[in-house]
Amino acid sequence: MLEDTSRTELSSLGEFGLIKHLTEHVTIKNPSSLKGVGDDAAVIQYENKVTLVSTDMLVEGVHFDLTYVPLKHLGFKSVIVNLSDIYAMNGTPKQITVSLALSNRFSVEAAEELYAGMITACEKYGVDIVGGDTTSSLSGLVISITVIGEAEKDKVVYRNGAKEKNLLCVSGDLGGAYMGLQILEREKAIFKENPKIQPDLEGKDYIIERQLKPEARKDVVQMLAELNILPTSMIDVSDGLASEIMHICEQSNLGCELYEEKIPIDTQTYDTARQFNLDPTLCTLSGGEDYELLFTIDIADYDKIKNLPDVTVIGHMTDAAKGRNLIAKSGSSHPLKAQGWDALLKK
Amino acid sequence: MLEDTSRTELSSLGEFGLIKHLTEHVTIKNPSSLKGVGDDAAVIQYENKVTLVSTDMLVEGVHFDLTYVPLKHLGFKSVIVNLSDIYAMNGTPKQITVSLALSNRFSVEAAEELYAGMITACEKYGVDIVGGDTTSSLSGLVISITVIGEAEKDKVVYRNGAKEKNLLCVSGDLGGAYMGLQILEREKAIFKENPKIQPDLEGKDYIIERQLKPEARKDVVQMLAELNILPTSMIDVSDGLASEIMHICEQSNLGCELYEEKIPIDTQTYDTARQFNLDPTLCTLSGGEDYELLFTIDIADYDKIKNLPDVTVIGHMTDAAKGRNLIAKSGSSHPLKAQGWDALLKK
Repeated sequence: MLEDTSRTELSSLGEFGLIKHLTEHVTIKNPSSLKGVGDDAAVIQYENKVTLVSTDMLVEGVHFDLTYVPLKHLGFKSVIVNLSDIYAMNGTPKQITVSLALSNRFSVEAAEELYAGMITACEKYGVDIVGGDTTSSLSGLVISITVIGEAEKDKVVYRNGAKEKNLLCVSGDLGGAYMGLQILEREKAIFKENPKIQPDLEGKDYIIERQLKPEARKDVVQMLAELNILPTSMIDVSDGLASEIMHICEQSNLGCELYEEKIPIDTQTYDTARQFNLDPTLCTLSGGEDYELLFTIDIADYDKIKNLPDVTVIGHMTDAAKGRNLIAKSGSSHPLKAQGWDALLKK
Repeated sequence: MLEDTSRTELSSLGEFGLIKHLTEHVTIKNPSSLKGVGDDAAVIQYENKVTLVSTDMLVEGVHFDLTYVPLKHLGFKSVIVNLSDIYAMNGTPKQITVSLALSNRFSVEAAEELYAGMITACEKYGVDIVGGDTTSSLSGLVISITVIGEAEKDKVVYRNGAKEKNLLCVSGDLGGAYMGLQILEREKAIFKENPKIQPDLEGKDYIIERQLKPEARKDVVQMLAELNILPTSMIDVSDGLASEIMHICEQSNLGCELYEEKIPIDTQTYDTARQFNLDPTLCTLSGGEDYELLFTIDIADYDKIKNLPDVTVIGHMTDAAKGRNLIAKSGSSHPLKAQGWDALLKK
């Protein structure tokens, strides 16, 4: 994948040359980006807003596998996972900085591919690349992105604002990104055994896209604003539903009841989980990377959201003493466990 | 160095556990830090100020060598190099986010050491750690820090504001960090040959401190403000004096005359360069990591600064057509070259 017909060595440009090369087509679009790449720091001006900052580091071999992740998709996704954190605060991402460590295994063309994916994500979400750093690495690729966004101070939604009897809601559907990863890992294993076999991805397009090209739920944040709903708490689903619910319960000092039958699962996700002898519910609870929004709302807002096609009420918040429980389809109650998807992978 | 008598494996805490462990003693001090670690994003509020953002990534084996850099010093320095970028904009750093990738070679105690150095730097400069990420790495340590600061909009100093006849000034002295590195590299080579020989650092304390424990020139920024001097351009000296002067010349579309005899060099730096058969002037021009501030001021401000002990006028800006020149001690003029310290190391 990293073999190019035309390959330009990173060393031919040098560190300053590479940054300059990668950012020369980057244009600044937001009025709040007073100064982008090219000085000691970027300069940003938000009028009467608070500033939101979040950062994520992605490491080759830990967070991504370049044998099946195209660099352009990786660039796109690495931006999306950061933007998602700002939407999860009910804010609007406006700027990012990008730091890359690249080993000499990568060519200038490979760095361009990665950057092209980042630029695509930025254009789609109206975000400016205002700074960054490129450096060499002794092994592999490390991507560190910091996103900066704005919000009205009294509209920022934290994890700790949920109240008893609030409804627990989630956007989209869950578990797809995790099942997409299982398909890609299976095909990688088959390819290793026999490189002549073409990958069999038929009928798996949705879940593979969930894994390789996730979106951030800007639309959900906008929709809630249009409906005049201010969630009482919110978090993005990056580490699996159970883990995120636990964060809200812990920080809001509450318990919850989560209804298994309400958890939104796409048919493709469900069927693939069954093919892999995995419990579909467990895949949503412990599989990660869906980047949907999990939020709580006052029960008085129920009428506003009950007919929204892309939001599902999956439970409600309770007194902390009641614990955090999954109500199974059978009606029985089980303590919710946040294993994280590391645990799932080790099964 | 990484062998501890009590060693706790990173895996015993897990990713969330490690962040929690490292940040549990981190307190938020700035009123502008509305929310620190623990949500999807940090929340910051600057009143009637612009926001400055800068980021730097440090990679083991590329930017630092743990055989002679103590982790606490590394943590301290990794914060300082970021703060320096904000001071170079004439701003005040207020928050940082810290992302770490650590291989399992590192223990929890090692991560604590690194963090302790970061916290020391933050306390010294009045900065809050408001976010971050820890992850595993397949090899070595990667540190990515983003610094966020504030400035009055009309007081931000860019690289592109220098004017013809402006005086070119620098704080402190130069070349020390580079010579400190040479001493440390020499002792490492000797130690490799014969581990029984103790490192000989006598009389090299100043330059070793310049390398291992640099400071950011907050004091210079404050002093200029007190003297009511607004530099016309400014940059921090991280890659050697020549490279930084070239940035100001290029972005301000000017030339310059830099006087070799005016370049401030400490006696220890000078003597050590001579011991290593290096040209002391070249060490200041191409050696990096001094983190002094290079700035230009209007000639009308000369009287205000001429008696400052820690600021030296080293030249002046000229028309671009005159080029960028070093006026040697002999009086002869030479085109300034920015080789960077990579070039110096390869000599």
